[in-house]
Amino acid sequence: VAALPLLLHQYIVNQPHHPGVVSPDQQRHACAPQPGTSGAAARAPSTGKPSFTNAFDIRSVGCSGDPTMFEAFWRETGDAAELVIPGWQTMSYFSDVGNVCWFMEPLFDQQVRRLHRTVGNAAVDGYHVLVGTGSTQLFMAALYALSPADADQPTSVVSTAPYYSSYPAVTDFLRSGLFRWAGDANSFVGDSYIELVCSPNNPDGAIRDAVLSSGAGKAVHDLAYYWPQYTPITRRADHDIMLFTVSKSTGHAGTRIGWALVKDREVARRMTKFVELNTIGVSKDSQLRAAKVLGAVSDGYDVGGGGASRHRLFDFGRRKMVERWRMLREAAAASGAFSLPAETSGQCNFANETAANNPAFAWLRCDREDVEDCAGFLRGHKILTRSGNQFGADPRYVRVSMLDRDDAYDIFISRLASLK
Amino acid sequence: VAALPLLLHQYIVNQPHHPGVVSPDQQRHACAPQPGTSGAAARAPSTGKPSFTNAFDIRSVGCSGDPTMFEAFWRETGDAAELVIPGWQTMSYFSDVGNVCWFMEPLFDQQVRRLHRTVGNAAVDGYHVLVGTGSTQLFMAALYALSPADADQPTSVVSTAPYYSSYPAVTDFLRSGLFRWAGDANSFVGDSYIELVCSPNNPDGAIRDAVLSSGAGKAVHDLAYYWPQYTPITRRADHDIMLFTVSKSTGHAGTRIGWALVKDREVARRMTKFVELNTIGVSKDSQLRAAKVLGAVSDGYDVGGGGASRHRLFDFGRRKMVERWRMLREAAAASGAFSLPAETSGQCNFANETAANNPAFAWLRCDREDVEDCAGFLRGHKILTRSGNQFGADPRYVRVSMLDRDDAYDIFISRLASLK
Ligand SMILES: Cc1ncc(COP(=O)(O)O)c(C=O)c1O
Ligand SMILES: Cc1ncc(COP(=O)(O)O)c(C=O)c1O
Repeated sequence: VAALPLLLHQYIVNQPHHPGVVSPDQQRHACAPQPGTSGAAARAPSTGKPSFTNAFDIRSVGCSGDPTMFEAFWRETGDAAELVIPGWQTMSYFSDVGNVCWFMEPLFDQQVRRLHRTVGNAAVDGYHVLVGTGSTQLFMAALYALSPADADQPTSVVSTAPYYSSYPAVTDFLRSGLFRWAGDANSFVGDSYIELVCSPNNPDGAIRDAVLSSGAGKAVHDLAYYWPQYTPITRRADHDIMLFTVSKSTGHAGTRIGWALVKDREVARRMTKFVELNTIGVSKDSQLRAAKVLGAVSDGYDVGGGGASRHRLFDFGRRKMVERWRMLREAAAASGAFSLPAETSGQCNFANETAANNPAFAWLRCDREDVEDCAGFLRGHKILTRSGNQFGADPRYVRVSMLDRDDAYDIFISRLASLK
Repeated sequence: VAALPLLLHQYIVNQPHHPGVVSPDQQRHACAPQPGTSGAAARAPSTGKPSFTNAFDIRSVGCSGDPTMFEAFWRETGDAAELVIPGWQTMSYFSDVGNVCWFMEPLFDQQVRRLHRTVGNAAVDGYHVLVGTGSTQLFMAALYALSPADADQPTSVVSTAPYYSSYPAVTDFLRSGLFRWAGDANSFVGDSYIELVCSPNNPDGAIRDAVLSSGAGKAVHDLAYYWPQYTPITRRADHDIMLFTVSKSTGHAGTRIGWALVKDREVARRMTKFVELNTIGVSKDSQLRAAKVLGAVSDGYDVGGGGASRHRLFDFGRRKMVERWRMLREAAAASGAFSLPAETSGQCNFANETAANNPAFAWLRCDREDVEDCAGFLRGHKILTRSGNQFGADPRYVRVSMLDRDDAYDIFISRLASLK
């Protein structure tokens, strides 16, 4: 298994659209209900995938990383997180012409810094904040900023397997001459590279450090899941480039807002330039909504100000995740056919207590001798998952989302428990 | 002059960051006031570039295409175009899983179709609507969708000079192996290409058709300015791929919403895939705001429904543009040092009368014998413009925005009139 992903990806690199690997497109459509629901709700804002009252949807359990679990929390907060936008507001391309990131709303910058100070998960002093259309756009921006423009060869992009399935797909889809996917970081040989460090890791929840170190190498730390609902906050991270997203911190994936904390001004400038050329900045409406939502989260813990609200996102999130992981471990034990990563824990500086690691995804291994394709096996039992081979790993593994709505999660658990 | 742009661009194609051509980054920063204003308004949403009460800003007249002229209209409409978003709304990555464009809000799709039916500027029946983070993202999506994935060579991307300065920059910044800028369409030799047809054209306002035709060639029609405030609506456009944006139709550039009308389902699918890989979809908040705003525009003309509001965007816009073009022609005549494209007009099927072409940019030529660099000359007189050479044209030309706020436009006019 160890050598296979690398071989596979060396093959992929020269191919335009990754034959042999299911693209995120196919993945996502595999996750989605069947066509036929289009336009159903044309008079109202969308609600994401249809709920389980619709029979056709019963199959779509647990596949995508859609964070709809958090909806229940935000329904409770009332108008504390409600945004009103008058017709004439923020019409300009520009937001803050004196900032490196000239299209960033100052309110957003402010609330990002405030939340990191509240949680203590990342340093912000001396950092540039950059806003992106999701952290996915900032991931591409980082590749662009860190690849030398005058190099003969594209810079190699690597990550320890199992790695987030979008990394290879997003790196290679335009066949850029600046950067190119080069597979598992552990098998990489060379001096010049960009290492993606995802911690806690998607798909397996592992706490990670960079495995490579060379003067010419660079690291991008994807800290999408470094929040108290998922993992103990053991230190204030202070890497050169750190990526975050509201998709995973607050659950607002539809708002498409991510941010980067960047130490070096020139890197910040080049990342900003990427976003400028790619989309001429980032939706102000989304930035203002994200600022509102992040502000509401900080308000929940603002004890110093005396105004701490009773709505505390990380308490809600941790309670949910602890409960769901307990259910999952019980279901796996009841079934006997699956194993899960061992539970780890640590001292959480935010909660001021020992807390377990409760990853946003379950990295499930099928232990049955006769099953080599775990995703296929589960699909046959109406559980949709992403196969391990999409993450550069063994297809005996699958990734399951832990962030779906309660009804979907409950169905997943009861189906899993009944499998022998 | 005719051969120069092509030579220049053949040179550029092999260079990562276009030495010798001012990048949009530099352009935009040249347009912006000096640093030092950062964070000034951190308690409120941004208002774009500071107004002219600030002395440092006096220089930034007329440079970018920021459509702040329309703010005055939207301040009049009251809550007809106001959007309220509860904290729990549209949190999912998904909007409409049965649609090719699975991340598009059905309300947005609906209002786009309604507005085109109201205005009569483009066919929508039998078309897929796709939403993008500005039409800039959909421009890249079209290049991705139209470039054969298995070609040995990148597909050539061309447009008749003078062309929108972003086309070469956006095409080449990632040095894609799929597509590559190849300069002026009129000098192109070959069978396989993507021709960008911008009509009315940025920068010169010309009404354009494709100049190339071959079985293997493709065209993308950028109709950002094909709206009644800028030009007579002479026909219902029905090209294979048509791009539009709220940035120019309603003035909401900060919302970052564009759309494509696409005939072919496979092309629509590949464009959607681009947006999925690039940013996992498009802000729902922005889509809902755009739907609200487009709906308010249609409401202004909904005579059949009996509910036509008294706020009519295209009437406002046309009145403004007519007035501004009159002022500009008078100022150019008073100065004697500049010439402008001749005024053209046509029968507007929307307004049901003859209407002039009133472009969103003035394509100004400096007629003084001693001035070869018109942008430099104007900069010396505190008028910032984009030089013709950024559009593949003669630096005796400059592009000036006609969509700035009244105060900025008035200063520009008085400065121009006083130049001899
Ligand atoms: C590790 C990681 N990074 C980034 C993302 C994408 O986040 P965004 O929605 O901000 O683009 C995800 C989403 O699943 C993720 O798991
Ligand atoms: C011709 C043309 N197309 C596209 C755009 C970009 O529009 P958007 O703001 O939707 O990305 C512009 C903006 O100036 C333009 O002039």
